[in-house]
Amino acid sequence: MTATTANALTLNLPEGLPYIDFEREFDAPVAELFRAHADPDLVSQWLGPRGLEMTVHEYDFVTGGRYRYTHTDDDGTPYRFRGSYHTVRENELVIQTFEFEGAPDVVSIETLTFVDLGNGRSKLVGHSVYPDVETRDAMAESGMETGMTEGYERLEELLTTSA
Amino acid sequence: MTATTANALTLNLPEGLPYIDFEREFDAPVAELFRAHADPDLVSQWLGPRGLEMTVHEYDFVTGGRYRYTHTDDDGTPYRFRGSYHTVRENELVIQTFEFEGAPDVVSIETLTFVDLGNGRSKLVGHSVYPDVETRDAMAESGMETGMTEGYERLEELLTTSA
Repeated sequence: MTATTANALTLNLPEGLPYIDFEREFDAPVAELFRAHADPDLVSQWLGPRGLEMTVHEYDFVTGGRYRYTHTDDDGTPYRFRGSYHTVRENELVIQTFEFEGAPDVVSIETLTFVDLGNGRSKLVGHSVYPDVETRDAMAESGMETGMTEGYERLEELLTTSA
Repeated sequence: MTATTANALTLNLPEGLPYIDFEREFDAPVAELFRAHADPDLVSQWLGPRGLEMTVHEYDFVTGGRYRYTHTDDDGTPYRFRGSYHTVRENELVIQTFEFEGAPDVVSIETLTFVDLGNGRSKLVGHSVYPDVETRDAMAESGMETGMTEGYERLEELLTTSA
């Protein structure tokens, strides 16, 4: 993977294991990085690739809570997602389930760790686990890397602008 | 694995993959099998090994709901568990997260499929996925097989008695 910006996305899909691992640093304090995940008005400004409209239907960002949102493309095609928050610990940890309703009953579980790097910088570490390697591969081949790269670029723009 | 009863637990821990897979047939209709998972008053009569008391603190068995319970042994030692229900589909499918609070932040996701075998018989198929192979192995070495074997024997007794 080549770094195209100072804070590039590092994505790792280990061979033969159903994981998606990633890391991304941000020029923003960890509390701001966390808030951009906690507040649906902020989330809808960055999550997903450029050019899609995000509508949040439900966003109960607490331990035991749940979420539902729709991404809509230029043609008006909706892509619906939903999940549960197993754990939400402020500025530290989120463990959540994730389902794209276009692939019903394929549910992954994602651990997001928020790391304070000091000097107003932070790092996001993600570990997603799929039901099997085949569904992980299908997810990876669905344009996921572009979506994540653009999403985190938009998040960085948001954090830099609002800082 | 040797069958010790007519409907024995089949447990499979694939080498190098973070899964726990199992199957168990029951001499009971699928609706009864599902109800024994849905109703906390029934669940507390069978879930887990013999000799533990189960106390259910929260049991919102719906899509987006959550649960918390405690198993207490003869010495009064509590073992606490909690999770979220990503999907609950009556007589068909449950997808839930699972955490033993003695191993904090190690969260697995379990898919339970309820199969109607006809003639008043049914089958439960489980697929649990752990964050990595090491935590799967730790879970497997914690007496899990005994707990599951005894738990499903108790469930069969409950289903046979109440039928």
